[in-house]
Formats: sequence, C-alpha cells, structure tokens
Amino acid sequence: MTIKAVVFDAYGTLYDVQSVAEVTEDAFPGYGGIITQVWRIKQLEYTWLRSLMRRYQDFSAVTRDALAYTLKCLGLDYDAETFERIIAKYLNLDLYPDAMAALEAMRDRKLAIFSNGSPDMLDALVKNSGLAGVLDAIISVDAGKVFKPSPDAYTLIESRLHTPPSEVLFVSSNPWDACGAKAFGLNVAWIERVSPEAMALACLESETLPPLTMFWALRTQMDELGVVPDHRIHSLAELPGLVSAIRS
Amino acid sequence: MTIKAVVFDAYGTLYDVQSVAEVTEDAFPGYGGIITQVWRIKQLEYTWLRSLMRRYQDFSAVTRDALAYTLKCLGLDYDAETFERIIAKYLNLDLYPDAMAALEAMRDRKLAIFSNGSPDMLDALVKNSGLAGVLDAIISVDAGKVFKPSPDAYTLIESRLHTPPSEVLFVSSNPWDACGAKAFGLNVAWIERVSPEAMALACLESETLPPLTMFWALRTQMDELGVVPDHRIHSLAELPGLVSAIRS
Repeated sequence: MTIKAVVFDAYGTLYDVQSVAEVTEDAFPGYGGIITQVWRIKQLEYTWLRSLMRRYQDFSAVTRDALAYTLKCLGLDYDAETFERIIAKYLNLDLYPDAMAALEAMRDRKLAIFSNGSPDMLDALVKNSGLAGVLDAIISVDAGKVFKPSPDAYTLIESRLHTPPSEVLFVSSNPWDACGAKAFGLNVAWIERVSPEAMALACLESETLPPLTMFWALRTQMDELGVVPDHRIHSLAELPGLVSAIRS
Repeated sequence: MTIKAVVFDAYGTLYDVQSVAEVTEDAFPGYGGIITQVWRIKQLEYTWLRSLMRRYQDFSAVTRDALAYTLKCLGLDYDAETFERIIAKYLNLDLYPDAMAALEAMRDRKLAIFSNGSPDMLDALVKNSGLAGVLDAIISVDAGKVFKPSPDAYTLIESRLHTPPSEVLFVSSNPWDACGAKAFGLNVAWIERVSPEAMALACLESETLPPLTMFWALRTQMDELGVVPDHRIHSLAELPGLVSAIRS
C-alpha cells in the first residue's frame, strides 16, 4: 500500500496560529502572548463542547466567541474595530516557512487540507498564503457540522477525495487531532514542534515559570488517549521523505 | 412549577478538586499547584475528546491518563506508589465547607449527584465525605458511556429520578457543565466562585502573572457557548433560598 493522498490539518500544522501574537500585542500591549494562548485554548475547547452539545456553529463563530471570552476574562475593554482587526489576522496567518517546499515536493500525490475552519476562512487563508495552486482540495468539517476529533468529521476526507483511509497520510501538529485521526483509521504523522526535553527544561523552575510555557505544555505534548500516531516528525520538511518511504 | 429535585455536579461543585494540591505538593515539592491545575484541565479535555472520538473510558481511567500526561509534560519522574498515593486523594476530596448544611436544608426535595465520575469513584467519595445519608441518588454518566456536556448524559437524570427537566435544578460551578445542562433543558444554577473583577485585578500585571491565575481564567469564567444559566450564585449556601423562590 502506498500513500496516494497527503492531507494536512491547517491551524498549527501548515499555518502558525501563534502568528496572531503581533496583532494582539499591538492592540493590547503587554497582553499579546497571553491573549494568543488563551484564545487558542478556548477556541479548541468550544469546538469540542459545541460538538458534544450538538450545538454546532462554524469555526468563524467559535473563533469570535473564544476571542470575546479571552478579552473578557483578562478584563480588557475593546471596541468593534479592535476586535475585527484581531479577527482579520485569522484569515492571513503565517504559513510555516517549510510548508510550500514540502507541498511542492509531493505534487505527485493528491494534496489537501482537512480542517475545522469554515469554508470561507480556509478559502481566504489558502488564497492569501499562495497555496491555491498546489492543493487538490480544501475540506472543511463544516460539510458534516461536527468538529474533529469526531469520526464523522474525518470520514469527509474519503468522501471528498475518493481515497480510502489506508492510502491517506494525515499530518497534524495537534496531538488530539493526530489521535483522533489514528482512532478513525488514517495513517498519521504527528509533527512534534516542541520536544519533551525542551519542555522539561523550561519547567525545571516552576516558581518562575512563564504562563506561556504552561499553555504550551497543555497542547503540544502527545496526549494519553489510548492511541498513538504512526509517525513522529519534527518539521514539514521531513514529510516528502517519509511519504516515499511508506510502502507496506 | 416548583423544583422537585436538586441535582449537583460533584467535582468542583460539592467537592473541591483543588484539594489534591496538598498531596501533589507533598509528592513533588514546588510543583503541587501546577500539577493540580494541568491535571484538572487535561482530565476534562480527555472526557470531551474521548466522547467525541467514541472511545469512552470511565472517569477513573481518564483521571489516571490525565495525571500521567501531567507528570510527563512537567518532566517529573515517579514510581507506582507515588502515582497511586496521588490518585487515592481523588476518592477523598474535601467537601466544600457549606455543602452539608445546604443539602440538609433542602431535604424536602429529591437530592442527587450527577457526575462524570465512575460509580466506584462516586461511591467512595460520598461515603468518605459523609454525604451518603442525605442523597437520594448518585447518578454517573457511566450508565450512558458518554461524558457531559452530551445531552445523552444529562438525560440520565430523568431516567433515574423520574423527574422531568423542568422540575430539576441542576447546580454546577463548571461553566461548560452549566451551559450543557441549560442547552439540554434543565433549570441551572451556576456557582461563580471567582468573580470577573477578581480575575481582572489579578491579570492587570500580565508580566508577573502567576501561571495558576491563567489556569483559573480558563475554567472559572462563564463560557461563550450561546446559552446562559438561569441563576448565578456564589456559594452553596445561597441554594436553599433560591430553590424556595423558584415558582413560576
């Protein structure tokens, strides 16, 4: 079996969600890092909670709700213009520097994004980052009205690409997403962008631990969910070699 | 319509999940607070993720997995005895000081716990805290094999107590739980134990913000999930008065 399609998570995998820190810092000096982290954590929580509550709203709405929560819980006042300026950055996130070259090197396979993002968000993101020409499909969970890691979300990959899970390599830096995809039956490569050693080192002195290190600890270490991704890589640059090597 | 049954969330509502901090601090000096917070956050994440993945494991297993994650991500080595000593505290959490009096004052209604906890955990907890005599039922989500806030969890209250949602007051300090119960159709009282003003004050100086304040910020402020609990109180002591006043 060879890999016929390489499918990428968007937020945190191809696109750096941390790149909103500049605009949040500009809007609220001194709070940029904290807003960025709380916002991301609550954004994901809300996708899980709304899915479980069966009260789906698209990722655009959830992202706005999470930002509103964040500013409120930090006690920050804001006007509509500031809010919209921060939100707008989500349509223009930085592409990871090694993304384009990795995609270009795998153009002999089907290439797609499979993301929580709503179609309008993903279309804007792909267009703004110049990825439109290299992707065969942009697949949003919105078609199934449930977020990852529900199996009803991952099944959209096959229905859209007509490639069975056994011939798909799904790539995500989000541990819970990598686990969800593996539990569903996809081949999965997890991008580990922060090593446990680096985390442990940062945590050695808990008294002086910066808050952001703790947020990282919550969402970048492999989760204990009873499944393990097939492959662990450290950057997108490792992907073309991995994809060629997978022949079982 | 009067309230015929008052149903309580357990962890964080009747029982103080922060009371594990003493045993975690004893096991890992200097890390007690951080372990306590990360552990709780991951414990809840895993209930949501496993429910969405349709890979339910009971709360006992999830609690162990979350603790294992926490110690690993903080770079802390441990032996089995230490691990078990920490886990054991979960069967012996501190009851909030105003819990017993509030329950005693409402014995003219049906009183129950409805919790994510597995039956064995809840039985031990209730027995160890002396609540066995005042509760009419201990309802675990385990009967439905899905965690809150799935509607399939909250529906267990009616099937067990034979009291319709309109005659139940559900009480939780967990914002996401209060929202889930409200979305399901229960009357809901949310216990707000940390005021936004106190949080905002703590966040005024972000550079020196202790990590634990941030964890609190993530899980004690009311969530933006499109529903709002019916009542907001600040302690269990306010409940008997509230329950008597509800007659619509």
